[in-house]
Amino acid sequence: MMKRIITFGEIMMRLSPPTNERFGQARHLEVVYGGSEANVSLALAQWGWPCAHVSALPDHAFGQAVGQYLRQHGVDTQYLCYTNGRLGLYFLEKGAALRGSQVIYDRYHSALAQIEKYSFDWENILHQAQWFHWTGITPALSENCAYELRRAMAIAQKLGVPVSGDVYFRSGLWQYGASPQEVLPELIALSQVVVCDEKAMQAYFGLAPEVCRASFAEAAQNLMAQFPSLQKVLDTQRVSLSATCNRISARMWNGNTYLETLPLEINPIIDRVGAGDAFMAGFLHATLSGQSDAEALHFGICASAWKHTIPGDMLLASVEEIKSLQAGDTSGTLKR
Amino acid sequence: MMKRIITFGEIMMRLSPPTNERFGQARHLEVVYGGSEANVSLALAQWGWPCAHVSALPDHAFGQAVGQYLRQHGVDTQYLCYTNGRLGLYFLEKGAALRGSQVIYDRYHSALAQIEKYSFDWENILHQAQWFHWTGITPALSENCAYELRRAMAIAQKLGVPVSGDVYFRSGLWQYGASPQEVLPELIALSQVVVCDEKAMQAYFGLAPEVCRASFAEAAQNLMAQFPSLQKVLDTQRVSLSATCNRISARMWNGNTYLETLPLEINPIIDRVGAGDAFMAGFLHATLSGQSDAEALHFGICASAWKHTIPGDMLLASVEEIKSLQAGDTSGTLKR
Amino acid sequence: MMKRIITFGEIMMRLSPPTNERFGQARHLEVVYGGSEANVSLALAQWGWPCAHVSALPDHAFGQAVGQYLRQHGVDTQYLCYTNGRLGLYFLEKGAALRGSQVIYDRYHSALAQIEKYSFDWENILHQAQWFHWTGITPALSENCAYELRRAMAIAQKLGVPVSGDVYFRSGLWQYGASPQEVLPELIALSQVVVCDEKAMQAYFGLAPEVCRASFAEAAQNLMAQFPSLQKVLDTQRVSLSATCNRISARMWNGNTYLETLPLEINPIIDRVGAGDAFMAGFLHATLSGQSDAEALHFGICASAWKHTIPGDMLLASVEEIKSLQAGDTSGTLKR
Amino acid sequence: MMKRIITFGEIMMRLSPPTNERFGQARHLEVVYGGSEANVSLALAQWGWPCAHVSALPDHAFGQAVGQYLRQHGVDTQYLCYTNGRLGLYFLEKGAALRGSQVIYDRYHSALAQIEKYSFDWENILHQAQWFHWTGITPALSENCAYELRRAMAIAQKLGVPVSGDVYFRSGLWQYGASPQEVLPELIALSQVVVCDEKAMQAYFGLAPEVCRASFAEAAQNLMAQFPSLQKVLDTQRVSLSATCNRISARMWNGNTYLETLPLEINPIIDRVGAGDAFMAGFLHATLSGQSDAEALHFGICASAWKHTIPGDMLLASVEEIKSLQAGDTSGTLKR
Amino acid sequence: MMKRIITFGEIMMRLSPPTNERFGQARHLEVVYGGSEANVSLALAQWGWPCAHVSALPDHAFGQAVGQYLRQHGVDTQYLCYTNGRLGLYFLEKGAALRGSQVIYDRYHSALAQIEKYSFDWENILHQAQWFHWTGITPALSENCAYELRRAMAIAQKLGVPVSGDVYFRSGLWQYGASPQEVLPELIALSQVVVCDEKAMQAYFGLAPEVCRASFAEAAQNLMAQFPSLQKVLDTQRVSLSATCNRISARMWNGNTYLETLPLEINPIIDRVGAGDAFMAGFLHATLSGQSDAEALHFGICASAWKHTIPGDMLLASVEEIKSLQAGDTSGTLKR
Amino acid sequence: MMKRIITFGEIMMRLSPPTNERFGQARHLEVVYGGSEANVSLALAQWGWPCAHVSALPDHAFGQAVGQYLRQHGVDTQYLCYTNGRLGLYFLEKGAALRGSQVIYDRYHSALAQIEKYSFDWENILHQAQWFHWTGITPALSENCAYELRRAMAIAQKLGVPVSGDVYFRSGLWQYGASPQEVLPELIALSQVVVCDEKAMQAYFGLAPEVCRASFAEAAQNLMAQFPSLQKVLDTQRVSLSATCNRISARMWNGNTYLETLPLEINPIIDRVGAGDAFMAGFLHATLSGQSDAEALHFGICASAWKHTIPGDMLLASVEEIKSLQAGDTSGTLKR
Repeated sequence: MMKRIITFGEIMMRLSPPTNERFGQARHLEVVYGGSEANVSLALAQWGWPCAHVSALPDHAFGQAVGQYLRQHGVDTQYLCYTNGRLGLYFLEKGAALRGSQVIYDRYHSALAQIEKYSFDWENILHQAQWFHWTGITPALSENCAYELRRAMAIAQKLGVPVSGDVYFRSGLWQYGASPQEVLPELIALSQVVVCDEKAMQAYFGLAPEVCRASFAEAAQNLMAQFPSLQKVLDTQRVSLSATCNRISARMWNGNTYLETLPLEINPIIDRVGAGDAFMAGFLHATLSGQSDAEALHFGICASAWKHTIPGDMLLASVEEIKSLQAGDTSGTLKR
Repeated sequence: MMKRIITFGEIMMRLSPPTNERFGQARHLEVVYGGSEANVSLALAQWGWPCAHVSALPDHAFGQAVGQYLRQHGVDTQYLCYTNGRLGLYFLEKGAALRGSQVIYDRYHSALAQIEKYSFDWENILHQAQWFHWTGITPALSENCAYELRRAMAIAQKLGVPVSGDVYFRSGLWQYGASPQEVLPELIALSQVVVCDEKAMQAYFGLAPEVCRASFAEAAQNLMAQFPSLQKVLDTQRVSLSATCNRISARMWNGNTYLETLPLEINPIIDRVGAGDAFMAGFLHATLSGQSDAEALHFGICASAWKHTIPGDMLLASVEEIKSLQAGDTSGTLKR
Repeated sequence: MMKRIITFGEIMMRLSPPTNERFGQARHLEVVYGGSEANVSLALAQWGWPCAHVSALPDHAFGQAVGQYLRQHGVDTQYLCYTNGRLGLYFLEKGAALRGSQVIYDRYHSALAQIEKYSFDWENILHQAQWFHWTGITPALSENCAYELRRAMAIAQKLGVPVSGDVYFRSGLWQYGASPQEVLPELIALSQVVVCDEKAMQAYFGLAPEVCRASFAEAAQNLMAQFPSLQKVLDTQRVSLSATCNRISARMWNGNTYLETLPLEINPIIDRVGAGDAFMAGFLHATLSGQSDAEALHFGICASAWKHTIPGDMLLASVEEIKSLQAGDTSGTLKR
Repeated sequence: MMKRIITFGEIMMRLSPPTNERFGQARHLEVVYGGSEANVSLALAQWGWPCAHVSALPDHAFGQAVGQYLRQHGVDTQYLCYTNGRLGLYFLEKGAALRGSQVIYDRYHSALAQIEKYSFDWENILHQAQWFHWTGITPALSENCAYELRRAMAIAQKLGVPVSGDVYFRSGLWQYGASPQEVLPELIALSQVVVCDEKAMQAYFGLAPEVCRASFAEAAQNLMAQFPSLQKVLDTQRVSLSATCNRISARMWNGNTYLETLPLEINPIIDRVGAGDAFMAGFLHATLSGQSDAEALHFGICASAWKHTIPGDMLLASVEEIKSLQAGDTSGTLKR
Repeated sequence: MMKRIITFGEIMMRLSPPTNERFGQARHLEVVYGGSEANVSLALAQWGWPCAHVSALPDHAFGQAVGQYLRQHGVDTQYLCYTNGRLGLYFLEKGAALRGSQVIYDRYHSALAQIEKYSFDWENILHQAQWFHWTGITPALSENCAYELRRAMAIAQKLGVPVSGDVYFRSGLWQYGASPQEVLPELIALSQVVVCDEKAMQAYFGLAPEVCRASFAEAAQNLMAQFPSLQKVLDTQRVSLSATCNRISARMWNGNTYLETLPLEINPIIDRVGAGDAFMAGFLHATLSGQSDAEALHFGICASAWKHTIPGDMLLASVEEIKSLQAGDTSGTLKR
Repeated sequence: MMKRIITFGEIMMRLSPPTNERFGQARHLEVVYGGSEANVSLALAQWGWPCAHVSALPDHAFGQAVGQYLRQHGVDTQYLCYTNGRLGLYFLEKGAALRGSQVIYDRYHSALAQIEKYSFDWENILHQAQWFHWTGITPALSENCAYELRRAMAIAQKLGVPVSGDVYFRSGLWQYGASPQEVLPELIALSQVVVCDEKAMQAYFGLAPEVCRASFAEAAQNLMAQFPSLQKVLDTQRVSLSATCNRISARMWNGNTYLETLPLEINPIIDRVGAGDAFMAGFLHATLSGQSDAEALHFGICASAWKHTIPGDMLLASVEEIKSLQAGDTSGTLKR
């Protein structure tokens, strides 16, 4: 039996006006579910990897719907913990042209944020795991979330399970007292792969602006020096030409080589939420399949580009479809 | 200038699957706004009464949409207080036949629940008022809500503004520490009109079950004995033949006479949320128009019946339409 | 080649909120097309009768859509006259339970109302006709409409084409100066079959209330005495139990016999607009097929009942479906 | 580990106009998936029973969506066989009042109908099974389907797995050459529980009409005499008052006692497709939970009644919800 | 109390197919309300300016919905006059790529077109006004509309209320007998700010083509020479690259300086109706806020560009959003 | 009376998710009908040409809806043959940006594929015809379809009716045994106009790759040499920049001259299905109107470009609209 990939994080209900209406015009809101870490499991499970997602959810119809959604796409839900908190929400307004999309979060006091310490049996969960993935959102939710994440990662280290983390700079979280500067370094220190932009490097890990300005490779190398467990530092870049036309690319430092993909233009963007998670999933798929860093980076950015064309948080794509993009077919030709 | 009617209470976003889907099947949720007290103002403002609603709302697009919704229907929104809390939500699943509708509340930590004491300038708000209306939901939200409501009612008393309250039995609220038994009696003591079922009479005001069983008139008289300011005790009754067919009637004790309406059958029910508020609005409209208690009770129950045929929380009806129902035309004839 | 059935009258765009929303709540309006006389042709053409509808329409995309709609269901559109007027509209609000549906008409200055005299070549149109059908709406639209209708009927008489008319009492039309009392008698005098309720008999043709009260047969016989060309007087009756539950029946006096159908209950009503036209179409189908008056009356009321279950103005039904209703199967059993 | 319940049969895409439109009016068709046997697994899996469904599906996006749908609701899909055939379809037109619903099947040449013999490894599938359920649809699809079903049942017998079958009379299948009279007796002979109406008893198993007329118990006893393995004969009855109002009840002969439930009226019906499967699932749940035949029959008919209120083929209900119906609460009261 | 901005003009119901369907394909039409002058008030009221709109509307549910819509967004509706005319309509077909959008007007005989002279108490309306805005549409509707507009402007002049007018060239109006050449000059003579393209300058005010060709500044200066009250002549320009991609800019002559903005490209356009009104509202907002002509022109064109991204006639935007565009952020970046 | 244009081929139901959802996400599917040959008739009938389409359809509600759809747009349906087969289906997933659209066909065993030989009375059908059009799809459906097509073309030749065929390369058909190489040459040999790409020239008619590479003119000339009846060889070319932005052009060899249009860019594409049929219809319209080859080619490609902006299979456009595109107006300007 193949070993499992474990992801840990909150899943929210996303509510968005179906067209380009502003929030205040909406009479109907489309419902999908998503969370950065779960999105990674969903994409990987679709490609045949055994994945389990760990989270807490309210024990009501919508909390159960989240579990059904994960199962629908093949993610193991046995570690979901049903409790009495609420389901985190976010509202998404779709922009167009020169008007950007907007998000209103309503996620405080969620079931996951309110978990008790030792809610999850990490020894058991990580026992048969081949990978563990986390993001900077989880430790920002509550002290107990940070505690459980740290505990999970320590156990992963003990069991030899490699760990990836996504720590993009995000303001607006960290409301419970702790600061990212206190919490994140300890987590990075337990990770092998990290996705991190320069803003986060400066804000969270104290890299000097001039180091970041010098080159991504140098900045990443500095980060690695600070956190010796780190083997790969990844980053995706986005040039926003308009709300509906972006150019994305990815880059990477693996301690030896600087790698960078060509940019891919997506026009029009159908839904960019989850594009970073699609990158992560793509990179992990290719890496776990034994491909080179360059191939994995390329597969990841193609997965991310494809995600922009799919409504909802989840990357829906076959490996073949991403490969065809990777092979250079961006023509969008009709397939009969 | 006519004096204003003041209502005070939370307004929530209501999210419901558009058809008879169960919660877990929903891909779209219909959005309307509503709150028991605001529903009363909305109905009365539509009939030409100057109304102002007092509440707190989050300062984001949906909070502003609530204000716009009140203004759309003519309710004065100058006392809405925009703060940093969240917008209370509730999810409504529409039943059918022998399957009842269901509500999931997600209202904790709302902007109103989190208001500071002395957030509202009640002296000013109630200065030109002819009526003040509250419900048992508001004091159940937080200590400060209970405090502000009590303060408002004391000022109303001082200014000679009559007060009505709606204190139906509702479990599931009162999470902040206080109990309804501690808080509600003081509020009833400051009210002239109260809508109250026997369950609430027993649970909140200690009436003996045998008194309630004896007759509504006797129970109401007991309540009045306990709270001398009370002049009218109202109650609506609902016989649920199925989720889509109900029979409703209203009854009243005014200290002298027991009044009771004939039942009205509504089949099919389009949306029963807000039917109690429509009753209250109808009763207040007729009472403030100088009609007798019997006429007001009848107008109230007709308004409530009509509400069952309207999607959303708000009673949309002209006075003429309710009067035609009151005159006995329940035939639903096409009007060209 | 079978001879044609000719109908003459306005076709309007109908705009209605898709669910039970009140007009003011509507964000979308459903579009269908319909007109009393065209509805008769549409139903008959569906059953294989060659039908042509005569009307005038604006020469824009929606006017053309009306023609396409007629052609779609097999009605000959060669006599539609495209001019510069507007397309008549009406708005339909769907009631429920004790709240009736409502119609707002916006039909003045329509293309048909503004036709010139001698716009239609009736000699040619009626040359190969086996039946001509009109309603009391057409002469109410404008002087020229009344003129053209009278002219058509005189030519029908000359050519020996039998004529049916539907002259239910309808207030709110007749805005151009003439009164129904001036215009309708001359039209009835040229008809062989008329659908007419007692209200119209009194208001338009001066029947004494006591005659109408005595019996339908007596009233109809009086009408026949006044208009010797008349051979059959028909009437449908509707008991409105609620906006969504009606009982309908039909009755008839043919100069010899009084015939009356058993009532059919429709619950729930999906769309009752066009139910009278469906009755007319059903009666004509059965009559032209050589069935007895009793059979035709029964087929007509079954067609009308079936129409209540179909969204839109048009009766969509096979002859077999109506016959199965006529045979007593009102059970609504699933057909696999 | 609990032993599994195994179901075997075709799953189709169901396409239906969203409202009461006739087929020809539809511009959109709602998509759900369903199949009589899979519906049983879906309901049971939702209640916590380990279920696996066996079928063949086309290897394209919609075939995969069927698998996702089963997994979403907890049904084990490891025995689904993806092949090159097509996905069976059926179109459903929703009737109303006196107009019945209609189904158009388009299921020939489906992936399941085209399976090869020995496509399924029944020894393995049934190894850990506690129940096997089939219906009369599967052997009607193709010779190989009948062959595989017979093979499965023989193995079930060998392994001591009890078997239930649903053999209602259905015309319009059996197009491949064999007749139900040839095939079904052998299958019944391998079953312990059968759902069977009198029409099927006469048509398929040669029971004399007078025996059926005498009483259900006598007819069932005759069937049991013919097929000694049979222990329980079940039947549901439906009185169709209209397309939207039915009364259902269930009855049973267990060799000793005749049991019959009181009728339940469902008004309005939201969706009656799958109501028989819900009955079966309810009966099996209660039986496997160790309840008496009378309790199981009652639980089954309540599950069936509840299904009528849910859009789609699947019974969505908690055990508690069905129990509350069983306890007599058919009032459809709002649950807050 | 801040003085009010007064706008005067017709408000229509706009009906448009929801997607890119052609008119004839539409089964549903989206309903919004809009009118050039009201759109200006709606945008300004949203930014906190006290605005009142003057118009006449039919006294039915849709006429009342128009009033509710204005109130929803904070426009004072006390001067709306409810009468018996009809609600003007227009149908909008949304083009795409090389297929342009299309409008079918159905606005004749509207309530406003049919007003009596002296329907509005302009002395009272303009008493506390700080601005009056009109467009060339209103005097084109009927003689009485032109009369009332002239009367309003004369009173504005008397009261010292500055006046802006929007007189773009529009064919297809002016059906009541008068010509724009007769009516508009007198109105411009009473205005201080005018939005006017070269086509209108030539067609309505007799400017020589060669003057217009020379430069906008020269043409505007000529116009000012002709109408000495004029202080600012504005114009927006649109380069239509396709139905879904336009480039817009604005220019202005204030008697001293020629000002011109850089072009803004909008791709894709969501809804361009009301873009000119958004420009006017933006320009007035900035001007009344004390900004320079250059700043006001820039704010106006940014407001207009933003409008292209919003469904419906109304500009929904905060001042901050427009300012961010003005500051050069056209990247449409996601805002969390 | 003008002579008719005859088309022959299958019409399918097309089912597609309404937005950019992937197949598996769809809960609703939009329904339109279309078929390559019928699309040509539909476009031409809209422009006033008498057209009749020949096909076979299932005798159920959806089969009848196809006939109604043809009649709606003026196509003569008297030669449609209603039989017992099924309605061919195809599913269309709309791509965006770099994700192409996808089609899943489900057309086997359709009514047309299952027709008997001599099902159509071609002598009668082609008697008054001025043109016959076929495509390479029809002979690929079944042996009898190929037989009937060959028979029709032989009779056309006998009656002097010119013939056009569209034989683009399409894999995935030809499942019944015959190969295109066996069947198509005989059909081309009976045609005067053919639309054919180089892939088909090589695959079906054995042209050497180097001839095709040399020039289209040379390849076409080779084809003409092989099939002497051929007078014009047409081809459209598509550059797919993305799923939503294409550039199309057309070219032609008429035995004397090589003609080629400038490319037209369509961005965004609303629906490209039927664009080739729109080209064919446009070319035939112009040719039959007596225009030159160059004009006809230009009109054809403009019709094809316009089609890309219309949802559904059918080109909805007036001749004037196409002409305005032909005249160079690709600006998509709003038409009031």
